[in-house]
Amino acid sequence: MSDFGIVIHGGAGAIAKDKMTPELESAYHQGLAESLRAGYAMLENGGASVDAVQKALNVMEDCPLFNAGKGAVFTNAGFCSQDAAIMDGRTLKAGAVAGVRHIKNPITLARLVMDKLPHVLLAGDGAEEFARLHGMEMMPDNYFFTERRWQQLQEAIEKEKNSIVTELSEGSREDDGKHGTIGAVALDRHGNLAAATSTGGMSNCRYGRIGDSPIIGAGTYANNLTCAVSTTGHGEFFIRAVTAHSLSALMEYRGMTLTQAADEVIYNHLTNIGGAGGLIAIDRSGAFAMPFSTPGMYSGHLLVGGKLFTGIYKD
Amino acid sequence: MSDFGIVIHGGAGAIAKDKMTPELESAYHQGLAESLRAGYAMLENGGASVDAVQKALNVMEDCPLFNAGKGAVFTNAGFCSQDAAIMDGRTLKAGAVAGVRHIKNPITLARLVMDKLPHVLLAGDGAEEFARLHGMEMMPDNYFFTERRWQQLQEAIEKEKNSIVTELSEGSREDDGKHGTIGAVALDRHGNLAAATSTGGMSNCRYGRIGDSPIIGAGTYANNLTCAVSTTGHGEFFIRAVTAHSLSALMEYRGMTLTQAADEVIYNHLTNIGGAGGLIAIDRSGAFAMPFSTPGMYSGHLLVGGKLFTGIYKD
Repeated sequence: MSDFGIVIHGGAGAIAKDKMTPELESAYHQGLAESLRAGYAMLENGGASVDAVQKALNVMEDCPLFNAGKGAVFTNAGFCSQDAAIMDGRTLKAGAVAGVRHIKNPITLARLVMDKLPHVLLAGDGAEEFARLHGMEMMPDNYFFTERRWQQLQEAIEKEKNSIVTELSEGSREDDGKHGTIGAVALDRHGNLAAATSTGGMSNCRYGRIGDSPIIGAGTYANNLTCAVSTTGHGEFFIRAVTAHSLSALMEYRGMTLTQAADEVIYNHLTNIGGAGGLIAIDRSGAFAMPFSTPGMYSGHLLVGGKLFTGIYKD
Repeated sequence: MSDFGIVIHGGAGAIAKDKMTPELESAYHQGLAESLRAGYAMLENGGASVDAVQKALNVMEDCPLFNAGKGAVFTNAGFCSQDAAIMDGRTLKAGAVAGVRHIKNPITLARLVMDKLPHVLLAGDGAEEFARLHGMEMMPDNYFFTERRWQQLQEAIEKEKNSIVTELSEGSREDDGKHGTIGAVALDRHGNLAAATSTGGMSNCRYGRIGDSPIIGAGTYANNLTCAVSTTGHGEFFIRAVTAHSLSALMEYRGMTLTQAADEVIYNHLTNIGGAGGLIAIDRSGAFAMPFSTPGMYSGHLLVGGKLFTGIYKD
């Protein structure tokens, strides 16, 4: 129990140990730690949780390791399509963007939507038009090119060629590297909660697919009455289970603790409909949870009076 | 209490009585009745609730009176941008589309997403590409031109010119005709619930704004454990309050009846954050609710053993 702190994730999934080198593993821990310290510093100085989660995500968006911002995966059409959402638990205000292609920091654009518009969710070209009008930092396509993500796309396309099933294929969505999301939840010194999520979506995805990250209640939710939540995993299952809001509702209406409610939505709700993934959540007492049903989840936490922790696999 | 039936809405809002002629009012009642009968006929023949809600919405999408399909409002850029979602309470499967421009029946495309893809939500050009691949009926821009909606756009643009506040304007969103959504919820003879929502969005809207209609948990939700819900009103408030799923959660976790939960989310949750609108909901016993906090809501119901009802204003 702490009176302020931040919890982050950098995506849940298979995270194949055979592809992981000591150098890469160390780089992930370093990226997570840098994000935590940036968010925590704001909280320590009395900053708002909504600013801290945005800052923590900006750091990860600028790091090529995570599937968001710079490190976003490629869609089937060979470009990046990014989604992000932010929610302020004090006001229940929220901002989100979906399908943006040239925004350096999608979570900053989501924040701008929350602050400047009566709208919550903007998509595609319209969202980019709004970003340009407000002088947001726009990037050419090649900023988002990373050799590793390009290879992941080529592998996914090759695999698909050898597969009879395409559209309804379930198994193909289990691959390491296909998913990945970053998220942060925080409690500030004023007792306010906030949540933020940002993602490059699904590698090789088609048809303007939008996952759960920019969907308030599914991938992102914050409410001072209960908790702040950010999820990662098979987005479609989180949408169908309205996961982030279910966690909040189990606390508010059934009286569960944060940990009970977090375990319930990940290990029961999601598993019952065939989904896998994880989430991070924090409540107003500073209690936090980070359950995941996948072999790994990049995650970390730093709370006042506690030590900085970063992790990847189940113990 | 009935063992099968359907409830629909055609949008909630100011519905200015001074602009309403007896002829127009009669046309609305007729449009609602036609939709109800089409959906009900399927239920009577033992059809699935998910087919009945889709059919009921197809009828309203083809009617120029409602803000969906043929009668969709114009965005600021002068074209129509439509959103739709459908959810099957038996499987918790869902399909949705956002920002489509040339689809005659957006709810049919949402259904196709649910049936054919592992994805839930598709947006923009990608969604239209998927529609074309599946031979969906595509329409040129002029199919969606209706004089009435064009005039509404011109009035909105004119009003905006005379206003200092644009982006954060709250009052301007109260206008009759700016909103409007259609929705249906049904219980079939097999005890299965389904919900569907379709909308032309907000007149004069900008930046690729997506409202609550295609957001599972906000504007559309169905779960055999609790109820099926479709909402209408200021979409952003329904997103922030996760309205459709909140109703379900109040029943499942707090033990409220359908009516208690429906009243709670419309008259308390939504009002508390400054939002207005309405919803329709039905549960597995055939109990239904249609609360609205606006002066009017186009609505109707037809349940086995009951009479066909269509209404516009509060009594």
